[in-house]
Amino acid sequence: MGAVHSSSLALSTDPRFVPVTSTLPPCVSKVSKSKSNSSLFGRTRREDKILGPPVSIFTSTVAQNSIFSESLPLKCARFEMGTKNDEVAGKPTLGFVEIDQDLVDKMVYDALVWSSLHGLVVGDRNVKISGKVPGVGLVHAPFALLPISFPESHFREACELAPIFNELVDRVSLDGKFLQYSLSRTKKVDAFTSRLLDIHSKMMESNKKYEIRLGLHRSDYMLDEQTKSLLQIELNTISSSFPGLSCLVSELHRSLLNHYGETLGLDPRRIPANAAVSRYAEALAKAWIEFNNPKAAVLVVVQMEERNMYDQHWLCSVLRERYNVRSIRKTLAEIDAEAKLQPDGTLLVGGVPVAVIYFRAGYTPNDYPSESEWRARLLMEESAAIKFLDNKEDIAKVRKCFAGLWSLEDPDIIGKAIESPELFVMKPQREGGGNNIYDGNVRETLLRLQREGTEEDAAYILMQRIFPTISPTTLIRDGICYKDHAVSELGVYGAYLRNKENLIVNEQCGYLMRTKTSSSNEGGVAAGFAVLDSLYLT
Amino acid sequence: MGAVHSSSLALSTDPRFVPVTSTLPPCVSKVSKSKSNSSLFGRTRREDKILGPPVSIFTSTVAQNSIFSESLPLKCARFEMGTKNDEVAGKPTLGFVEIDQDLVDKMVYDALVWSSLHGLVVGDRNVKISGKVPGVGLVHAPFALLPISFPESHFREACELAPIFNELVDRVSLDGKFLQYSLSRTKKVDAFTSRLLDIHSKMMESNKKYEIRLGLHRSDYMLDEQTKSLLQIELNTISSSFPGLSCLVSELHRSLLNHYGETLGLDPRRIPANAAVSRYAEALAKAWIEFNNPKAAVLVVVQMEERNMYDQHWLCSVLRERYNVRSIRKTLAEIDAEAKLQPDGTLLVGGVPVAVIYFRAGYTPNDYPSESEWRARLLMEESAAIKFLDNKEDIAKVRKCFAGLWSLEDPDIIGKAIESPELFVMKPQREGGGNNIYDGNVRETLLRLQREGTEEDAAYILMQRIFPTISPTTLIRDGICYKDHAVSELGVYGAYLRNKENLIVNEQCGYLMRTKTSSSNEGGVAAGFAVLDSLYLT
Repeated sequence: MGAVHSSSLALSTDPRFVPVTSTLPPCVSKVSKSKSNSSLFGRTRREDKILGPPVSIFTSTVAQNSIFSESLPLKCARFEMGTKNDEVAGKPTLGFVEIDQDLVDKMVYDALVWSSLHGLVVGDRNVKISGKVPGVGLVHAPFALLPISFPESHFREACELAPIFNELVDRVSLDGKFLQYSLSRTKKVDAFTSRLLDIHSKMMESNKKYEIRLGLHRSDYMLDEQTKSLLQIELNTISSSFPGLSCLVSELHRSLLNHYGETLGLDPRRIPANAAVSRYAEALAKAWIEFNNPKAAVLVVVQMEERNMYDQHWLCSVLRERYNVRSIRKTLAEIDAEAKLQPDGTLLVGGVPVAVIYFRAGYTPNDYPSESEWRARLLMEESAAIKFLDNKEDIAKVRKCFAGLWSLEDPDIIGKAIESPELFVMKPQREGGGNNIYDGNVRETLLRLQREGTEEDAAYILMQRIFPTISPTTLIRDGICYKDHAVSELGVYGAYLRNKENLIVNEQCGYLMRTKTSSSNEGGVAAGFAVLDSLYLT
Repeated sequence: MGAVHSSSLALSTDPRFVPVTSTLPPCVSKVSKSKSNSSLFGRTRREDKILGPPVSIFTSTVAQNSIFSESLPLKCARFEMGTKNDEVAGKPTLGFVEIDQDLVDKMVYDALVWSSLHGLVVGDRNVKISGKVPGVGLVHAPFALLPISFPESHFREACELAPIFNELVDRVSLDGKFLQYSLSRTKKVDAFTSRLLDIHSKMMESNKKYEIRLGLHRSDYMLDEQTKSLLQIELNTISSSFPGLSCLVSELHRSLLNHYGETLGLDPRRIPANAAVSRYAEALAKAWIEFNNPKAAVLVVVQMEERNMYDQHWLCSVLRERYNVRSIRKTLAEIDAEAKLQPDGTLLVGGVPVAVIYFRAGYTPNDYPSESEWRARLLMEESAAIKFLDNKEDIAKVRKCFAGLWSLEDPDIIGKAIESPELFVMKPQREGGGNNIYDGNVRETLLRLQREGTEEDAAYILMQRIFPTISPTTLIRDGICYKDHAVSELGVYGAYLRNKENLIVNEQCGYLMRTKTSSSNEGGVAAGFAVLDSLYLT
């Protein structure tokens, strides 16, 4: 038995991704990204923003223009949609002509009912207790009324990448020295990173073998209108959020198209099957079996308050109903108070042995308000339980990159950026968003740096600017229907399980589609909000 | 095609029910009953209290003693339960010894999660909009943590009565003259009854034939500790409320016992299967088939605000998913505005022909604030649509009775009541509860009436006093766990469908168990609240 540290890096093997030169200094951690402020919960979603260990970056910057949402209680304002082969604002749309307003109202009503009956719910942000006590302050999860159209070839491409990324994450995470080296710069400036790396060093020194390795990853992509290609936005080295709710949205959309598809000219069979929650539960159950202690449970490390708890509960519910595997939900502080390590490495929580530790907290400094939480983290790392982390990781920082990412040492790319600044974003090498440079300012800044010839250029990187497909969309939140232009991000789940040399699971595990209203071409800021969505293959 | 008027009466054939003498004046309408004030919604539930046509009575009075609930956020106070064969306060309890408090907490948490994921929800009474817009202001439906123990023989008895009551309701409702006669006294004092009877007269005069007759009934019972018998509380000549949610509670309890049953010494298989929503949907679908118009829909007549909408939505959801039958939800005012009657009797609502009208409103004067609602009601009655009403009906008033119900003309029963007044309740023949006479006062009043020899005795009836089984119970509402002593009421659903002489459906359709905290021996008043429950056969 061993502990998994799929905690750090994944490398892109997509040939479209341009390698960063080896001299490029690592991007700073916690660079905010466009989706940071447009979470499914109407506030910055920590779990979406920074998933630990420490370094979370993004590799592409999203350019978008938007019309701000107008709020329309239940009755949607008429929403002009393009015809099947039309383009709205130059973007492809779902294949239906102007939906009759009465029909939209009916579909919205049905969708809200469906969500309530089928557990597509979250805690209501207006009800404080909703993040702590289940069953109260429930509200439907925000969702798009209809699936977003998406090219089938790109969807397949994303699915095929899943097992490749699974394996890459596993390989990289085995290379402890490499991880320490590549995060050494961040360690100096980031106390949180530093403490996590200290724990990592300790584990390396103890020479414990992590024989059972479980990874639940999700790779996120956007369609780039300029290159007509699928560009990776980030790779979450875990079951990030929404394996539970994402399946439900696919089902919701299928149910709507079963009833209204004929009228809309849409075929429900073009919504791909989505078994994210089943597959993740299966992977967890298989890891639990490898641990080989029938009395053991899965420990879910949770935050004090979690309005997205039902997404997590769906996973635990399937685990229990289908595999009879119990889970225990504990905060880090509770683990510090209740957990004990036995001489053989078995972690006991409340007397129950832990087979698998599933982190849905612990990836942000906010989760460690005192030494108690750090003690709990060390204890879990020292245990024999199978761990996997709820992480988003900087990949570009180390060796490879996703969509284009360049240091300013490359005169070719600088020339190209001066010539076509609209295709690039200049990002300062420091924390926080909102300081990106776009369009004409890219040219001006580059020319100034060339003139001055100082070292200041090391403070910037150039990134390929992503122009995601923007579509008119109907989004529902808090029972209110909005029409807006929106961009979508496809996440593809993957699961990986290995016991010593024996590869047990390496597969694609369903998908997550998120659609968010677009509002700003500032890479670090996007107003509006995000909803769950599914896809309609074209 | 025809219209059903299963609108009025059901007669008890239970030999234990003592017939009322034919000279007994009918009980007045809308006598409040013990459960009126202890609804599942924390306020008087109109649908539970008075289900039209006009006359709603109850035939038995519930005697109960209670400890008021103490509110314990999430953590329940320790709750002393009896052992398997023990009696708590002389009452049988579920077969487990003192449940460990940690276990109670775990079960409460799991039950709240289960409810949220599986649509066991209602609109939150603290969120105004929750009765109008689906998907917002959701809260778990109140429920008992564990099923209530119930003798298998009595459960079977109740199930076997269902088809008998179905047929009785059908037969009685065919006798229009009888209905007019038996409600003639009420008509004089109750304007609402009067208007409904006017519509009924009009329909009789028009001589329209109601060839397709659909009845969705629910007969409610309590276990009487004194007689150890199952006593009927009332007969709802319709799908009253909770065919949707009642099944879910059975499933919830089964799920809890699947996981905790071994520890508790309880067998999940002893919770009877409950297919109320499937069977009701099937009956509705069969009625829809008889109507024989594939474009037709089921019209659900609803109140303006309905926090129990998800119970109704479950039924409509199964109808649609399983039988592809659409439903339309409309208030009476909307029907007045949108509905049209075609020359052949077809009712169109928004251009859609209506096959079946399912009343979940229209049974109380509150539902008729203006002439608009009355016009809608008449229009529906005149239509060829299959109607069935969401009614509770006085049965005792006509020929037979449920639990003991006597006029004061019978000297034997008066002698018995003077001898054992604690076994009876004296009820004044007028509207409103809270004026019942109990215990020593029964004797005193009877003796006074005997002395005075006036006609005043016609103003009273004597009723058998029911002593329902009181059990210590753990009840969950708004995420808060309460321990209290509670009484339970079993409802057994029945469905009946006939087309001319062809009997299509006559069956028992699952059950509803409601448990309410007990607080008062005043028949018309009970504080505390009611929760959904299921039963554990013993």
